[in-house]
Amino acid sequence: MIPTKQNLEATYNRIQPFIHRTPVLSSQSINQITGANIFFKCENFQKMGAFKMRGAANAILNLSEADRQKGITTHSSGNFAQAVALSAKLLGVKAYIVMPENAPSVKKAAVLGYGAEVIEAESTQAGRENKVKEVIAQTGATFVHPSNDIDVILGQGTSALELIEEVVDLDYILTPVGGGGLIAGTALAAEYFSNAKVIGGEPAGADDAYHSLKTGEIQPSINPDTIADGLRTSLGDKNFPIIQKFINTIIRVEEDTIVQAMRLVWERMKIIIEPSSAVPLAAVLTEPRFFEEKKVGIIVSGGNVDLGKLPF
Amino acid sequence: MIPTKQNLEATYNRIQPFIHRTPVLSSQSINQITGANIFFKCENFQKMGAFKMRGAANAILNLSEADRQKGITTHSSGNFAQAVALSAKLLGVKAYIVMPENAPSVKKAAVLGYGAEVIEAESTQAGRENKVKEVIAQTGATFVHPSNDIDVILGQGTSALELIEEVVDLDYILTPVGGGGLIAGTALAAEYFSNAKVIGGEPAGADDAYHSLKTGEIQPSINPDTIADGLRTSLGDKNFPIIQKFINTIIRVEEDTIVQAMRLVWERMKIIIEPSSAVPLAAVLTEPRFFEEKKVGIIVSGGNVDLGKLPF
Repeated sequence: MIPTKQNLEATYNRIQPFIHRTPVLSSQSINQITGANIFFKCENFQKMGAFKMRGAANAILNLSEADRQKGITTHSSGNFAQAVALSAKLLGVKAYIVMPENAPSVKKAAVLGYGAEVIEAESTQAGRENKVKEVIAQTGATFVHPSNDIDVILGQGTSALELIEEVVDLDYILTPVGGGGLIAGTALAAEYFSNAKVIGGEPAGADDAYHSLKTGEIQPSINPDTIADGLRTSLGDKNFPIIQKFINTIIRVEEDTIVQAMRLVWERMKIIIEPSSAVPLAAVLTEPRFFEEKKVGIIVSGGNVDLGKLPF
Repeated sequence: MIPTKQNLEATYNRIQPFIHRTPVLSSQSINQITGANIFFKCENFQKMGAFKMRGAANAILNLSEADRQKGITTHSSGNFAQAVALSAKLLGVKAYIVMPENAPSVKKAAVLGYGAEVIEAESTQAGRENKVKEVIAQTGATFVHPSNDIDVILGQGTSALELIEEVVDLDYILTPVGGGGLIAGTALAAEYFSNAKVIGGEPAGADDAYHSLKTGEIQPSINPDTIADGLRTSLGDKNFPIIQKFINTIIRVEEDTIVQAMRLVWERMKIIIEPSSAVPLAAVLTEPRFFEEKKVGIIVSGGNVDLGKLPF
């Protein structure tokens, strides 16, 4: 059930030609402010601007030749839509992306720009799932879930794998927690290749993963209210067992701390990160004593922001 | 009069311990859009966020021991103020920064944060110069000009030196043109260490350097009107002879092209650059045929922007 070290190594070898090895950056001034020694693994510089590229590429690479002919489908209005579209393009596979009809046109344009087909659906969970079923019935395409899929989880874990390779003796690795794919993959990489503990950062306004861990059952994300738009989704039955096994701590952060953390990174590091990516640094700012003088890795999940809608 | 290759090499060796070697980044999508092969030398990642650190460090390092005791002074409300303040701090030298009384408080705070003394002056050229004279009379501090100073020019040239070392066979190197220190230093580096031609980018609303080259005499920058706030100043008698000798072309760009270029870099590269730094890419967008299939280096001068006042 839980993927092995060999699975993760094989994943990395498989996707390596199709992804960027992203840089690890530090900031003296952010270290001074936090008292921690932070290493930012910059997936905002990943292809299409987010770690999701890793999982999407792995899912498509794992299709049989027959399935590749039929294509791939997913429902997403965010980074995973672009990740599947671009991975499919690079691998010569047809992609059908189901997007809510009210998704911003710039997001649809990005997916279309990568050559995928966009299928509009009602903007409800049921509406999207029904549309995906239609696509599968018509095309035979394989469905890949944005976060609750073992191939996707393994792909997302390769970011931490690179980080661990580059920075020795990390005490902690922090990731944001949304659908659970990134933190589950990161947990596997940390377990198999380091002594680092993995901690999740989650908006207080979308703390379903926190409550899921506490109650031992997946709690759905109901009316999430956070600027971190990548973190509004619920955990799933594939990633929750991994999270339950390896993750002890999820730190919840307030909205103003997320914006403060995002602003710190923009101003001090001169890099663009999306609100979801600011959540781990917000966790450090929320619990500074916990991280004082520790070596902390942070997976900067992505950099796709709408410049017309900034919180500054 | 014109500094030598040896001067530039000595400068680089002198300042190297006090500056970052900044990365060179590329963007497939910006290359696709422009048709050129562009290498961005990212001085936005330099200490204090701009190339000005290089010239300021060189100026202070060239002071005699006796002069170091008395301190250094300049007038600037922009990046050079912070560059002198930080360089002085690193070298244990007292810095007196004359700033216009209406300078944004965040800029004063940044200079104070580096431990420099801020002296307010009337916001006219005469007001600032008189205040600097007072400071010198009282303290014996050495004045260093933000752009019209040979040590500063040599320091600024080291960015292109690193770029040339890293990317072979560049056809062109583009810089923004403000006070003239960066383009003059870059011209020296290109002349002594490469076959690249150096081209300036200048806002059409502040095109004094363009007219200076055309007329063969320094033309003052009168009522400059551009978002590129680092490029509103005039050339000086130290840098103009270098610019005249080595620079043939200055491309003037419109304001909307500057904003378009800035947005392209933010969105596609996920890095924060200031409006002045977008001017060279705007020049490529303005004259695309000229740069088609050429290897083009761009000095990204800095990343200090006011996030509350973005043009998007």
